[in-house]
Amino acid sequence: MRVKITLAYVGTNYAGWQRQSNAPTVQGAVEAAAAVIADQPVTVYGAGRTDAGVHARGQVAHFDTSRDWPAEEWQRALNALMPADVRVVDAAPADPLFHARHGARGKTYSYQLDTEAVASPFLAPYAWHVGSGLDEAALSAATEALLGRLDQRAFATQPEPGERTERPLQSATIERDGSVVRITIRGRSFLRFAVRGMVGTIVEVARGRRTVASVRAAAESGDRTLAGATAPPHGLCLCRVHYQEPE
Amino acid sequence: MRVKITLAYVGTNYAGWQRQSNAPTVQGAVEAAAAVIADQPVTVYGAGRTDAGVHARGQVAHFDTSRDWPAEEWQRALNALMPADVRVVDAAPADPLFHARHGARGKTYSYQLDTEAVASPFLAPYAWHVGSGLDEAALSAATEALLGRLDQRAFATQPEPGERTERPLQSATIERDGSVVRITIRGRSFLRFAVRGMVGTIVEVARGRRTVASVRAAAESGDRTLAGATAPPHGLCLCRVHYQEPE
Repeated sequence: MRVKITLAYVGTNYAGWQRQSNAPTVQGAVEAAAAVIADQPVTVYGAGRTDAGVHARGQVAHFDTSRDWPAEEWQRALNALMPADVRVVDAAPADPLFHARHGARGKTYSYQLDTEAVASPFLAPYAWHVGSGLDEAALSAATEALLGRLDQRAFATQPEPGERTERPLQSATIERDGSVVRITIRGRSFLRFAVRGMVGTIVEVARGRRTVASVRAAAESGDRTLAGATAPPHGLCLCRVHYQEPE
Repeated sequence: MRVKITLAYVGTNYAGWQRQSNAPTVQGAVEAAAAVIADQPVTVYGAGRTDAGVHARGQVAHFDTSRDWPAEEWQRALNALMPADVRVVDAAPADPLFHARHGARGKTYSYQLDTEAVASPFLAPYAWHVGSGLDEAALSAATEALLGRLDQRAFATQPEPGERTERPLQSATIERDGSVVRITIRGRSFLRFAVRGMVGTIVEVARGRRTVASVRAAAESGDRTLAGATAPPHGLCLCRVHYQEPE
């Protein structure tokens, strides 16, 4: 039996999603709880390998089990055994051909900026404090400049040899919610650090340190030296993983 | 020179506002930073003694200093020296007769309930997870039943001998914001644990475990045994302290 789970987690205390032998990870936390329940090792496959300190509201994962339990029982038991900063928010039986990572058709990330003059202690774990001097019109224009042709090498770390790096976005929007500016980016797939590289670059535009045109030029060139700094991990959140199914 | 500061803090890691010799407190954190700046001990007087684990967005405090600095410099220097979970969000020179506690004419507290079936890990530090079974109409009616004659002994700990305990509320409202239900209570003054006792009691109504009439009966009687359990501290936040000045 294959079980699909949707996870929300605060990444602060984790060295990212992917299991490591010598550091706490989200995959490790889920697998440890699942192994207790199954009474044998369980491999949990996640849709996205979120980096250290990155959060999720809609990470998707799957695992196989011979335990004939309703999915809700798995949800209840996993939540009972896992630390409170990792929660299964949904669980459902999945087709044996469903694969959380290979089946993903897109991902939506959000990135939160705290624009108060003094950093909110409540937002501090979940937002990058950029202060009150942002030019929001420029931020909006820079966000739009991410659309169109996009070689993600401009914003990401070196890809694996042979990896396709032309990966245009499906959408990129910003919205304000009180003192928080939220950047939402959806794409088919992302190179490592690409979203944080994009955010770091457009924030430089909003601070008057680079032009909107330079964002477009970087996107088309795929040249990492033409883009800005990588934004810190704690503002980033994997909101949703998209599959070929009715939404 | 007297300085008035407004503080926001996450109370999670503090044994409350009031200085203690053997536990970290918010007053202790502010005073330690102020003493470094002033190069001598500084006493900081807070408007409200928030309890262990309780948060603030608008705690007010004052202190005296012979250092002839603009208030903004105090704000900048305190924020540079204090831990990130305590922030001075405003600082202003105050009249020598201003007293943060004695001059307070009222306080507004908010209390957050997380009504998702699965507790949000993002809200966990700031909201009491009560689950999805709340009857919101009953919660609303129970909140209104707090208005009118109110002997706070019904909801609080034993007052000091001679303390006035008839302390009606100025307002009590609820609002929904996504999965969060926020209860906002304003009053002239509160006995210790009174707000949390009120919240615990009205949540019992929303769970169908007591009647709205029983809330009114408790409020009029001042009898602690007639009210419900004390809600946990981490949902509570001191939003604002009111003074006799234009708002």
